[in-house]
Amino acid sequence: MVNQVQTVDDTWRRCSKSDSSGASNSGGESSKESSRSSTPVLDTDRTDRLRDKMRRRTESGDHWFSLEFFPPRTASGAVNLISRFDRMGSGGPLFIDVTWHPAGDPGSDKETSSMMIASTAVNYCGLESVLHLTCCNQTKEKITGYLSKAKRLGLKNIMALRGDPIGTDWEEEEGGFNYATDLVKHIRCEFDDYFDICVAGYPTGHPEAQSYDEDLKHLKEKVDAGADFIITQLFFRADTFLKFVRDCRAIGITCPILPGIFPIQGYQSLRQLVKLSKLEVPEEIMRVIEPIKENDAAIRNYGIEHAVGMCRMLLESGEVPGLHFYTLNREVATMEVLRQLGLWIEDPRRPLPWAVSAHPKRKVEDVRPIFWASRPKSYIYRTQDWDDFPNGRWGNSSSPAFGELNDYYLFYLKSKSSKDALLKMWGEELTSEKSVYEVFTSYIMAEPNQAGHKVMCLPWNDEPLAPETNLLKDELAKVNRRGVLTINSQPSINGKPSSDSIVGWGPPGGYVFQKAYLEFFTSSENVTALLQVLKKYEPRVNYHIVNVQGQNTTNAHDMQPNAVTWGIFPGREIVQPTVVDPVSFMYWKDEAFALWIEQWAKLYEDESPSRMIIKYIHDNYFLVNLVDNDFPLDNCLWQVIDDMFELLDVNPLEQPVEQAAEQFIQEQSAN
Amino acid sequence: MVNQVQTVDDTWRRCSKSDSSGASNSGGESSKESSRSSTPVLDTDRTDRLRDKMRRRTESGDHWFSLEFFPPRTASGAVNLISRFDRMGSGGPLFIDVTWHPAGDPGSDKETSSMMIASTAVNYCGLESVLHLTCCNQTKEKITGYLSKAKRLGLKNIMALRGDPIGTDWEEEEGGFNYATDLVKHIRCEFDDYFDICVAGYPTGHPEAQSYDEDLKHLKEKVDAGADFIITQLFFRADTFLKFVRDCRAIGITCPILPGIFPIQGYQSLRQLVKLSKLEVPEEIMRVIEPIKENDAAIRNYGIEHAVGMCRMLLESGEVPGLHFYTLNREVATMEVLRQLGLWIEDPRRPLPWAVSAHPKRKVEDVRPIFWASRPKSYIYRTQDWDDFPNGRWGNSSSPAFGELNDYYLFYLKSKSSKDALLKMWGEELTSEKSVYEVFTSYIMAEPNQAGHKVMCLPWNDEPLAPETNLLKDELAKVNRRGVLTINSQPSINGKPSSDSIVGWGPPGGYVFQKAYLEFFTSSENVTALLQVLKKYEPRVNYHIVNVQGQNTTNAHDMQPNAVTWGIFPGREIVQPTVVDPVSFMYWKDEAFALWIEQWAKLYEDESPSRMIIKYIHDNYFLVNLVDNDFPLDNCLWQVIDDMFELLDVNPLEQPVEQAAEQFIQEQSAN
Repeated sequence: MVNQVQTVDDTWRRCSKSDSSGASNSGGESSKESSRSSTPVLDTDRTDRLRDKMRRRTESGDHWFSLEFFPPRTASGAVNLISRFDRMGSGGPLFIDVTWHPAGDPGSDKETSSMMIASTAVNYCGLESVLHLTCCNQTKEKITGYLSKAKRLGLKNIMALRGDPIGTDWEEEEGGFNYATDLVKHIRCEFDDYFDICVAGYPTGHPEAQSYDEDLKHLKEKVDAGADFIITQLFFRADTFLKFVRDCRAIGITCPILPGIFPIQGYQSLRQLVKLSKLEVPEEIMRVIEPIKENDAAIRNYGIEHAVGMCRMLLESGEVPGLHFYTLNREVATMEVLRQLGLWIEDPRRPLPWAVSAHPKRKVEDVRPIFWASRPKSYIYRTQDWDDFPNGRWGNSSSPAFGELNDYYLFYLKSKSSKDALLKMWGEELTSEKSVYEVFTSYIMAEPNQAGHKVMCLPWNDEPLAPETNLLKDELAKVNRRGVLTINSQPSINGKPSSDSIVGWGPPGGYVFQKAYLEFFTSSENVTALLQVLKKYEPRVNYHIVNVQGQNTTNAHDMQPNAVTWGIFPGREIVQPTVVDPVSFMYWKDEAFALWIEQWAKLYEDESPSRMIIKYIHDNYFLVNLVDNDFPLDNCLWQVIDDMFELLDVNPLEQPVEQAAEQFIQEQSAN
Repeated sequence: MVNQVQTVDDTWRRCSKSDSSGASNSGGESSKESSRSSTPVLDTDRTDRLRDKMRRRTESGDHWFSLEFFPPRTASGAVNLISRFDRMGSGGPLFIDVTWHPAGDPGSDKETSSMMIASTAVNYCGLESVLHLTCCNQTKEKITGYLSKAKRLGLKNIMALRGDPIGTDWEEEEGGFNYATDLVKHIRCEFDDYFDICVAGYPTGHPEAQSYDEDLKHLKEKVDAGADFIITQLFFRADTFLKFVRDCRAIGITCPILPGIFPIQGYQSLRQLVKLSKLEVPEEIMRVIEPIKENDAAIRNYGIEHAVGMCRMLLESGEVPGLHFYTLNREVATMEVLRQLGLWIEDPRRPLPWAVSAHPKRKVEDVRPIFWASRPKSYIYRTQDWDDFPNGRWGNSSSPAFGELNDYYLFYLKSKSSKDALLKMWGEELTSEKSVYEVFTSYIMAEPNQAGHKVMCLPWNDEPLAPETNLLKDELAKVNRRGVLTINSQPSINGKPSSDSIVGWGPPGGYVFQKAYLEFFTSSENVTALLQVLKKYEPRVNYHIVNVQGQNTTNAHDMQPNAVTWGIFPGREIVQPTVVDPVSFMYWKDEAFALWIEQWAKLYEDESPSRMIIKYIHDNYFLVNLVDNDFPLDNCLWQVIDDMFELLDVNPLEQPVEQAAEQFIQEQSAN
């Protein structure tokens, strides 16, 4: 590897820079990124480039896997693919890659484009991603444009391909992109060392190559031009791949070569693929599957068994550091193969308590406001234009405006559930505020609502309750039933091991801490009582209480963020990944209130009673957040809410709440 | 006050800027300092300007005091004055001021200059300081030069005075500085709102003024020109001052007026002062002191009693927010008056665990390497050229080079003890390394050495052991006796209240934490054994072991600081004021080793056995630091040292230490 990098230097540094518009993206920034402008972050997986991660994993003798996807055809396909990324990301792929689909406007901003899918994987799913790029029939300007855009979107890795010529009358173009080598050279020339580059290898030779040996020579040229690693075309026998690797090494190719694994998933898809790739399926496989070609399950089982066997041989050979899977955008077969190989590892350890983004400019990001805890994609979206991300401290430097969130329709921010499913969960017809309380309670308890449908999400949280929040389940259900509509909460934690399976995060050997946090919508009557009650809890409890108009009551410093999650690790500075920040709370408030309308009210007809109920809550309720600063003591926030209910119960409607409150406080302090 | 600021705006903004060289210091920076470039620091006393501190204290009904000093005549006088600043600073003065001594080259870099004394008070003693400045017989360029220098040195407050004309034939100069008002205007004109300005008031009228009323008018002019507060000349009766204040208010002077209190400390000094200030001592005072004029103690006691009585009347009048003391550079009388008034408050609360500097550019500084814990002045000196100071996180951004420390002679870095005293403490003659071990042990135990002299300081610590370190006393003595020469240590702390009188710091209601730390010099034999022992403590203990040549052994990341002190406070981000930083440890190492030679070896004759012993230690010992990352558990560092001794004891000289070590480790792990 090291030698190979040298070779690259020798080759591509000699190329002359074009004067095209996209060329300003190289050199400077690459060296800037290696400068030590801040403390190294906890997790080298966030900072290393792909080739370095590969090297580390190879050196450690650790096997890895990667996953290939193609762009979906429809918008709803994109929504599904993104949640598939989230699910398959949890198994720990080293990277995923997204194919280039020349006929599908691949470089556009369409939700189905290769560019957008790869960008979403990086930015919103936090996955190291490789974008394929084909150069055949493309101008240099076009290609440079694609690469500049990819870079801007946070993509750092390109799979450089020639692509299939359109039509049969394709001829080499003078000075054009005739081979993948030309594209590799172009990337190095225009973008210096910015991208990690992958190229394709053909274990049985490229179908169009004059010979196997000729094809190997082309591969060597691609590597010499600056490619960092090779992924092979699929094959059916481990021997095929192992011979290919030996042949590559023999002619001086030293970079990693990843075998492309294709678990057979069905008779039709196999036939199609074979036709496209001009490969021959070995007879021993055809013999098995021909008789069962109508039985999908049987074929898939055979495919899994075959892939597992082949992968075992590859891994045992010692020549294979990692396996690359052609998933065909499906989960089951690949996950099963990986599980049987012991490579699918759902690591409960999290580098930080929230889902990180893989955009290079977010590398050092390690602080976020707690408000978006359940909407990390929305947070990433609304901060995508920031130049710097807070590191170590939230501070004020990091309070540039948040982007508007009028774009709920964007596929990566959309609910996974259809309108129909949402109506079933949240009620086809609402009769009162109480019915809203019941939806919240059902969600908390993970129980079916009155119509018998399990409430799996709320507008503020597209996932079932987090395991951590489950710790608070009974308390949460109790208060939601009475109209304290909780949308975010965490228990207090006084130094649990960082390896704790529920609340742990960060490297091993550390201790994590939390201040108790509770955030909810509630009526103005409740708020009036709450404010009275909170006087008893000064200065232990900090609060912010705001309505949709921005009328804000707080006892906190208007510029001071309050750290509510932090961790202490061996040999590290303190990490404090979540804060309650008064400034960004005002931005979150807009989003939190808007979700009532955008996600819930709009499910119902204009002017319908259901919509009016949600609208009433939106217009009249307050959003409240509470922090219990005394983390070593028992969380007092439930007591705060209990006191509020008690105060309301004392004298519910007979006298103005303020008077009742005063009376209550006097009684309490007399005790 | 608010109105008065308005008046200022009206007046001095109209002045035309001169084109002199110092003029570039205004506007921009003042507004920059008010911008929110980072989280507000914990402690408003560090960020507010003097006039705002006064306003806050006045509004809260809190009384305060301030202290006036004059520059010393000799270098050793400067050393003494600086330690007086440290002692008198502990009583909590709102500010100190330093008089301008025109005959003493007051603006120079001499250790006895007004400028250097005031700058040292700000930078090294962390005291809010006011520098006097007289303008009589000075050019505008000269004055602007002084002000620019004062600003550069971190001074933010000027007492603007005319000064005494030299000789009797002084005449007003056209366009020159004829009155303090001219100086006030000049400051506002050239430096905008940067400085807080104080002017002098004369309760009985200025001796040269035509009349008391005429003098009041001049005072009003000074205030209108932009002065923020007034300090009066001394007086002997409370009534004199109270009438003066009434008269000032009557003509529209609204700013704070601080009474100048002169506790009579001796017959001669009183006479001299009276002569200079052309004041008359009231008969009731003369009647008391004339008969006791030979009895210094009696006069001082009377002076204290008189001052206390007068101050009580002033404070009770409600017209006096704070008292200004003419100390004559003495401690006893003023401190006694303040004690009797209940104003001397040695607040054990510290904003941070280390002594902060009051230089404005260090306002946000809240992280330092632990190495300089006992040498804060040296740390401030070596980082004085930094443009930014770390805030929130140490990071790497804050690892610009440290300045050299070849300047041990500087008065603010020098030991308070004389060479003679040091020889008595550290030994007139050393006979072996053992005698050095004994010096360390005596220091730790605060016990006399063999010659009967108490060891009050070491080259690495000019003060007796800190109360916190006292917690570790017995353990420390034990290991020093055996040649583990400790120079810095702290116990582990797992969440003590921030108000704890020994280890607490920061605002109330918080919790402070520490990782145990131990730093020591020890022989290479010990280090060999230690390194074997440390293998048992991976990854719990981080270590750095380095000799004078910089040969460095560590198990820590070479760029990652390790936070060893941190605090969690209500409504705040985490504060982590001390770190073990690998990069700055190399700078500290140079200083720590050099102190052997500069402070200790050089006490002895060249080539003398005593000097050779210290030189041997300097050349051959290692500097070691250890951090126990597991702060919730019992500190394991003593066990580490015990294990090292045990390993050495097992087989001291018969076999190479490495073999013994291996054997030891095997035995230990077999248990």
